[in-house]
Amino acid sequence: MENVRLGIIGIGNMGMSHSLRIHREHKVPGMTLGAVCDINLERRTWAQENLPGVAVFEHATELYESGLIDAVLIAVPHYDHPSLAIEAFASGLHVLIEKPAGVYTKQVLEMNAAAKQSDKVFGIMYNQRTNPVYQKVRELVQSGELGELKRVVWIITDWYRPQAYHDSGSWRSTWEGEGGGTLINQNPHNLDLLHWMLGMPRRIRSFCSFGKYYDIEVEDDVTAYLEYPNGATGVYITSTGEAPGTNRLEISGDMGKIVVENNRITFDRNRISEREHNRLNVDPFRKPVCWRCEIPVSGDGGEQHIGIFKNFAKAILQGEKLLAPGEDGIHGLLISNAIHYSTWTDDWAELDRFDHEHFYELLQERIKSSTVKKNVVQKVVDVSGTH
Amino acid sequence: MENVRLGIIGIGNMGMSHSLRIHREHKVPGMTLGAVCDINLERRTWAQENLPGVAVFEHATELYESGLIDAVLIAVPHYDHPSLAIEAFASGLHVLIEKPAGVYTKQVLEMNAAAKQSDKVFGIMYNQRTNPVYQKVRELVQSGELGELKRVVWIITDWYRPQAYHDSGSWRSTWEGEGGGTLINQNPHNLDLLHWMLGMPRRIRSFCSFGKYYDIEVEDDVTAYLEYPNGATGVYITSTGEAPGTNRLEISGDMGKIVVENNRITFDRNRISEREHNRLNVDPFRKPVCWRCEIPVSGDGGEQHIGIFKNFAKAILQGEKLLAPGEDGIHGLLISNAIHYSTWTDDWAELDRFDHEHFYELLQERIKSSTVKKNVVQKVVDVSGTH
Repeated sequence: MENVRLGIIGIGNMGMSHSLRIHREHKVPGMTLGAVCDINLERRTWAQENLPGVAVFEHATELYESGLIDAVLIAVPHYDHPSLAIEAFASGLHVLIEKPAGVYTKQVLEMNAAAKQSDKVFGIMYNQRTNPVYQKVRELVQSGELGELKRVVWIITDWYRPQAYHDSGSWRSTWEGEGGGTLINQNPHNLDLLHWMLGMPRRIRSFCSFGKYYDIEVEDDVTAYLEYPNGATGVYITSTGEAPGTNRLEISGDMGKIVVENNRITFDRNRISEREHNRLNVDPFRKPVCWRCEIPVSGDGGEQHIGIFKNFAKAILQGEKLLAPGEDGIHGLLISNAIHYSTWTDDWAELDRFDHEHFYELLQERIKSSTVKKNVVQKVVDVSGTH
Repeated sequence: MENVRLGIIGIGNMGMSHSLRIHREHKVPGMTLGAVCDINLERRTWAQENLPGVAVFEHATELYESGLIDAVLIAVPHYDHPSLAIEAFASGLHVLIEKPAGVYTKQVLEMNAAAKQSDKVFGIMYNQRTNPVYQKVRELVQSGELGELKRVVWIITDWYRPQAYHDSGSWRSTWEGEGGGTLINQNPHNLDLLHWMLGMPRRIRSFCSFGKYYDIEVEDDVTAYLEYPNGATGVYITSTGEAPGTNRLEISGDMGKIVVENNRITFDRNRISEREHNRLNVDPFRKPVCWRCEIPVSGDGGEQHIGIFKNFAKAILQGEKLLAPGEDGIHGLLISNAIHYSTWTDDWAELDRFDHEHFYELLQERIKSSTVKKNVVQKVVDVSGTH
């Protein structure tokens, strides 16, 4: 294979943007746009007009059986990622899914099993993994530079989304349409990075507010307390209702403290580890000697979506290692589901024995008891610079 | 009365420092040192040698009955603040207590009742209230500049105290000697400021670790989630086990966000309130226009202890309003007790119906089941610059 012929399912906000960058701007070496598909006539018309030479289908099955593609990007609403991925694997296609992997872990576990049974490449659009800042933080943690983890505090409250956003589609910000609020829509990237940098917490106790700032039924304000296997603790705070909001990540370890803010990394580095200092020191008030280090790293955000596409193409063509394997989608989603679950049950959520079935049932209850009747026309909005 | 003649009970770390500044350095206009008292012979000897002309007593009752003082500073271990204050009011003395007001709310409520029955001035050494930075933040919140409160996050993990500190006195960091760890020893100032700036939370869910970093039985790591009457939320994080640690206070409101760090205030101020913006706005991704404002304020920390002494003297001599009324001590202590209580019961602590008696019982259980046997010589340590 010389080029990967990509199909895209869902020519909505993301699908439109991706199709143009691949087909018109040729941004991804080794990848061409083979076909697209959307159940919405208006969007198929847009595709016919704007993507010359690209086949347009109504249903995914037609796309899968067309023989025009080697791989598929699944860019439809969250609920349908797993079922469409499972069908794609069965059709012998490589699969790239948009985030989140799905809405509930149960369906994502099934998708991962299907991926495992196939010999196809399976990726997920965790484009924030291409950001050199988070790559560097991950390296500082995993190389041991920061020492053993003590605490993480991520305040990620700059995901402001006004009522006009929630009203921009009938599926938006509903249990039935999205299966959650800011956890499932804006935060999948951050929850993935959290896991990718620090590993999985052991248990979570969370406090979500639903429709606190907006006329919506899902969460728009979240505080979660995390405990890690080594006893380290964490706090994850997010909201769509604060302006201007904050994006500040602080990670404390035995060797000091890393702070990420404004896409810059500051490492307050202890000359010797705190535990070693504590063992040797006899002065009741003496701290370890600490150096402020500015960590050199590009603040340009990296290649983002294009970087993921390039990596996905190379993984298919040359066997390159995936930066964001699709199977990893379960981790961020498990944290997300556990945060919902802890608030719903007003109790701890244990991650290594999470009750996937019970979560699914509680989600179904919310869908069934929903009273949302949205009288809005779904529209495609300009998302440039927002994801 | 021309000068307030102060007595000091407890010539330990704080008592020594205060007595020298009043008696030798004459730092407090309108206040003289009338007498001191300590049950420890070594400290009485120090007083006789270093405080010429000042009477020295062994027991508080002798001091109270001496006729040599008009007011008393109670600077003994925390447990004894309320009983000594109650006895002082009964002896017709004005009272200034060191923080915390006491160890458990039950005894502090009794002290406040005794204060109310007397016609004496009652103050507490909340010296951080003299810091112009916190005074300004309080003013920005209470004047409405910040708009309605949405969230507060205080990361106050720069209270590093190594094992050598915990070993510096047999009473230190024990349930019997102090009645708690960092909440009761280092954090009373911050918990008071939290209440003073923002008012009381409605309920608290907390996560404390006991002896996580040190060979102690009390808490050295705390995460508390707070809910306010208006629905605003908060997170309060503190530890003595992190170095270098952080002191960063972030308060979000409808009009933007205040951040206090390095004794500076930044106010990211929305041009119109977020709620008003949300009502008028039709763009799915538009945030309110926001201006970064550096708030002019002295970063020198204010007069601290001397400021409290001056204010206390003027309150007695001229009826000046107290910056830190003694009755206010209950608020920070209630937050502190509630944080302990929530962790002990692994449940919510409701502040407006807090079970003072049950807290007391749970504390007694911990004292009785303590296995701490400290083989350390109590010593007075140099505390300059640490409180």
